[in-house]
Amino acid sequence: MRRPVRSSVALLFLCALAACSALRPAPPDPLPSWRDGAARSAIVSFVSAVTDPDGPDYLPPAERVAAFDNDGTLMAERPRPAHAAFLYAGVVAAAARNPDWSVQTPYAPIVAGDLGAADALGYAALGALSDAVQAGLTETEMDRAAMAFVAGPAPPGFRAPVRELAYAPMLELVRYLEAAGFRVFVVSASGVDFLRAIGTLVYGLPPERFIGTATKYAVSEQAGAYHVVHAPGFSTLNAGRFKAINLRLHVGVRPVLAVGNSDGDLDMLRYASGGPRRSLVLLVDHDDADREYAYRDETERLRAEAATRGWRWISMRYDFGRVFSGASE
Amino acid sequence: MRRPVRSSVALLFLCALAACSALRPAPPDPLPSWRDGAARSAIVSFVSAVTDPDGPDYLPPAERVAAFDNDGTLMAERPRPAHAAFLYAGVVAAAARNPDWSVQTPYAPIVAGDLGAADALGYAALGALSDAVQAGLTETEMDRAAMAFVAGPAPPGFRAPVRELAYAPMLELVRYLEAAGFRVFVVSASGVDFLRAIGTLVYGLPPERFIGTATKYAVSEQAGAYHVVHAPGFSTLNAGRFKAINLRLHVGVRPVLAVGNSDGDLDMLRYASGGPRRSLVLLVDHDDADREYAYRDETERLRAEAATRGWRWISMRYDFGRVFSGASE
Repeated sequence: MRRPVRSSVALLFLCALAACSALRPAPPDPLPSWRDGAARSAIVSFVSAVTDPDGPDYLPPAERVAAFDNDGTLMAERPRPAHAAFLYAGVVAAAARNPDWSVQTPYAPIVAGDLGAADALGYAALGALSDAVQAGLTETEMDRAAMAFVAGPAPPGFRAPVRELAYAPMLELVRYLEAAGFRVFVVSASGVDFLRAIGTLVYGLPPERFIGTATKYAVSEQAGAYHVVHAPGFSTLNAGRFKAINLRLHVGVRPVLAVGNSDGDLDMLRYASGGPRRSLVLLVDHDDADREYAYRDETERLRAEAATRGWRWISMRYDFGRVFSGASE
Repeated sequence: MRRPVRSSVALLFLCALAACSALRPAPPDPLPSWRDGAARSAIVSFVSAVTDPDGPDYLPPAERVAAFDNDGTLMAERPRPAHAAFLYAGVVAAAARNPDWSVQTPYAPIVAGDLGAADALGYAALGALSDAVQAGLTETEMDRAAMAFVAGPAPPGFRAPVRELAYAPMLELVRYLEAAGFRVFVVSASGVDFLRAIGTLVYGLPPERFIGTATKYAVSEQAGAYHVVHAPGFSTLNAGRFKAINLRLHVGVRPVLAVGNSDGDLDMLRYASGGPRRSLVLLVDHDDADREYAYRDETERLRAEAATRGWRWISMRYDFGRVFSGASE
C-alpha cells in the first residue's frame, strides 16, 4: 500500500522541480533562416568558441562586442538606402513651399520624380538634402518623422515598405549574438537619428546601439522646455576610418565580430580583425538577382582583402533560406 | 495512516516550488547608505511612479534613461578630478625625457610638485597635458595606463586611491536604477577613455555607458594589426550644452533623471527636466567638511535655477549615511 504513495510523492516532487527549472524542451534553432553551409558553421563555431569558459578563445562578456553595417548588410540598400528615400520624401513634401527647388540642384530631379538622377549626385548632395529636410527639427519632430516614414508605405521605386526590407537571417544573427552575451552595434554612414527608428520598429535594438553620421546640433530653451535641435551641416560623417574611430568613441571596446558589404566598411572590418583576440569578419554578397539584387559595386578592395585575410562571404543566394524579415516567402 | 503521508506529499511539493521560484526572503534595502529623508523619498517615489504600469507617469523601459555627471557627483573631485591627477602623473613619468618641461607652462608646476599652481591653470592647460600624455598612445596602451592608475596607490595629495573615491550612496542609486530597467549613462567633462577604467573597476558599468571629452583619434595599421590611436587636440569637449547634445548623439533618448553638482551640468539637467515626461533632477551638495569637503564653487547659477524649478538637493552631510564606497567608516 505504501509504495504507490511513495512513487506519487517522488513524481509530484519531480514535476514541481521540472515545472520551474531545468527540464525544458530543447530550444528551437536560433538561426532557422540560414541554410547549412560554411557561413552558418563559421558563425556557430565562433560563438561557441568565445563563450566556452574552458576554451582558449574565451571572451569575458564585457568584450563581446559586434559591429554591423546597416545598408546592404542588415537591410536592402536598393534602390537606395532608406535614409536617402526619407530625405527625398522630405524634399517632395516641402517642394510647394520652395518653388526654386524645381530648378536647383540637388532638389530638381527629386521634385521632377527622376530619382535615378538624384541618386547619381551621390553623397555630396545628401548634405544639402539633410539641411533642407532635417535642419531646424527638434529631436521629437525628427523622431516622429522617421518613425512615420519607417511605419509608412513603400517609398517610390521600393518593392516594399522600409520595415519589410530587413534580412531575416541577419536579424536572427543579431538575436543569436545578443543571447550569447554580445552587445550588437549598428555602424552606418546613414543618419543616426533616422536609423534609430528602424532600430525601434524593426530590429528591436535600443537607440544607443546606433552609431551613424550626425548633423550638427544646437539647443533651444523656451519657458522651461529644452530641446536638442538639428542644425545645418554634419558633426560626424561615419564612413571609412570613422567607423573604427567612432566605435572607439562610443563603445570603447574593439569589436571581435564585424559584418559589412562594401569598401566603406573596410576600416571597421580591419579594426575587428586587427586585434589580439579571435575574430570573425562576415561579408554580405549580393548575388541573388531573383530574391534581392545582384551587384558588386564598391567591393573591389573588399574582395581583394577578404581573400588574403580569411574573411568569410555570406552568399545571399545560397546561405539565406529566407531573405526578408517582413515577407512570408 | 494516510493523512501524515498526504501532508508530507504536500509539504515536499511546496518545498520544491519554494526552492526554485516564488517564496524567497524579502529583498534587502537597495539603498542602505541613504538616510531617510526628502532626497531618498524623492528617488523611491519617482522610480515607483515611472515603473508602475497602471500609473499616469509610467515610462516604457526604452525611455528609462538616466544621466549622471562624474566628478563631484559619482566620486570626489577634490583635491582634483581623477583624470587631471592621471595627466599630472603622466607628466611626472615623462619629465626626465622632456627636460624643457621644468621651465614650460603648464608642465613646470607639475614637475616641481606644486600641484595647486597647476590646478590654477584650469581647463586650458588640460589640452596641452592631454596631448603630452595621451597623444600617440594606442587604445590598448591608453586603457592599460588608465586601469593601472585607477588600481594603483593614492595620487599625490589624495586621501585614498582613486578606486576608493566613489560615493557609496550614488553607486547604490545607479544599481537601484539599473534594477528598475534604467540605462545609466555617465556624462562628464573628463576624458572618456580614462573614465571607462573607473567604470570597469569601480562602478560596474559597461564602457558604452560613458560619454566624455575625447581626444582626436587616428588609425594605424601595420602587418594586419589595426589600432585606433590618440591624436593631439580634442574631438569633443563634453561640457555645457554638449552634455545635452552628446546625449542625443550617443543615446538618442532624452534622460528623465539627471544628477549633477555644478554649473557645468546645467544644460544636461535642463534637458532632463525640459521634456514632456515626469522627471527627477538631483543635485549633490558638498556640505560635509568632516567626511568629504565643503564647497560651493561654480554652483551659483545651479542654486538659482534649482530654487525656481523644484530640482532637489542631496546633502552629503545629512542624506549620506556612509560616504565612500571604498572605505569601511
